[in-house]
Amino acid sequence: MTDNWIEQLKWTEDGLIPAIAQDHKSGRVLMMAWMNREALEKTIQEGRAIYWSRSRKKLWRKGEESGHVQKLYDIRIDCDQDVVLMQVEQLGGIACHTGRESCFYLRFADQQWQPADPVLKQPEDIYNR
Amino acid sequence: MTDNWIEQLKWTEDGLIPAIAQDHKSGRVLMMAWMNREALEKTIQEGRAIYWSRSRKKLWRKGEESGHVQKLYDIRIDCDQDVVLMQVEQLGGIACHTGRESCFYLRFADQQWQPADPVLKQPEDIYNR
Repeated sequence: MTDNWIEQLKWTEDGLIPAIAQDHKSGRVLMMAWMNREALEKTIQEGRAIYWSRSRKKLWRKGEESGHVQKLYDIRIDCDQDVVLMQVEQLGGIACHTGRESCFYLRFADQQWQPADPVLKQPEDIYNR
Repeated sequence: MTDNWIEQLKWTEDGLIPAIAQDHKSGRVLMMAWMNREALEKTIQEGRAIYWSRSRKKLWRKGEESGHVQKLYDIRIDCDQDVVLMQVEQLGGIACHTGRESCFYLRFADQQWQPADPVLKQPEDIYNR
C-alpha cells in the first residue's frame, strides 16, 4: 500500500520518521520515538501509537507489555513533512519505562541533567504483571 | 569544551540530536529541529534556541532573520538521553517560516494532510523587513 499521504512524508534513509507524543489534555510532551511506514499506517488505522523499535527492529505497539497504551486523538506533521506530532490519551498516566509520566524527566540544572519528576509506579510493577 | 553533560547525550553518527521546542505557556509544540554539540552549548549559554541547519550546514540562531527568537525557559532530555525538549517563549508568536504559530499545522483528515491553522503573518512580511 503506497498511499500518497505516506509517501509525501520525508522518510530517513532507513525509512523512519520521528514521532512526538503529547498528552491531549495536559499538553505534556510524553516521548519521542520513531515510526516506519507500517507503524504510521497502523497508528492511524488502529487509533493508537505504534512505533518502530530501532533496538529490537520490530513494530512496537506502545503499551503492549505495560498496558500504557497511547490512544490517538489527533495527528499532524510539520511544514517540512519530516516530523509527526500526535495528541494522545496516555492510559495509566505513565509514558516512560522508568514509571514516570513523561520520558522528559531529566532537567538541566547546575551543569547536570537531574531527575525532576516523581516515579509514579516502580518499573518492576509495570512489567511483571 | 567536552563537558560531561554534553558527552553523556546520545548523538547521531552525524553528531546531532533532535530538539523539540514547546511554548512554555500554551504548551503548544512549535517545532522540532536538530542541534550539534555547539548548538546545544550555545542554546544554554545564550538562553535562546540555537539549532544546526542540516541544509545550510551551519548554526541557525532561530530568529536571526525573522526576529522570531525562542527564549529558553527550561531544557530537558529524555530517558534515553537522545532527545532534547525546550520550554520557550516564542517571540512574535510565530515559529513557522510559513507565518504560523507552530510548524505542526498539517492535520490528518480524509486521508490527507490538511492545513489546520491560520497564517498570522505573510512570509514576505517576515523575511523582508
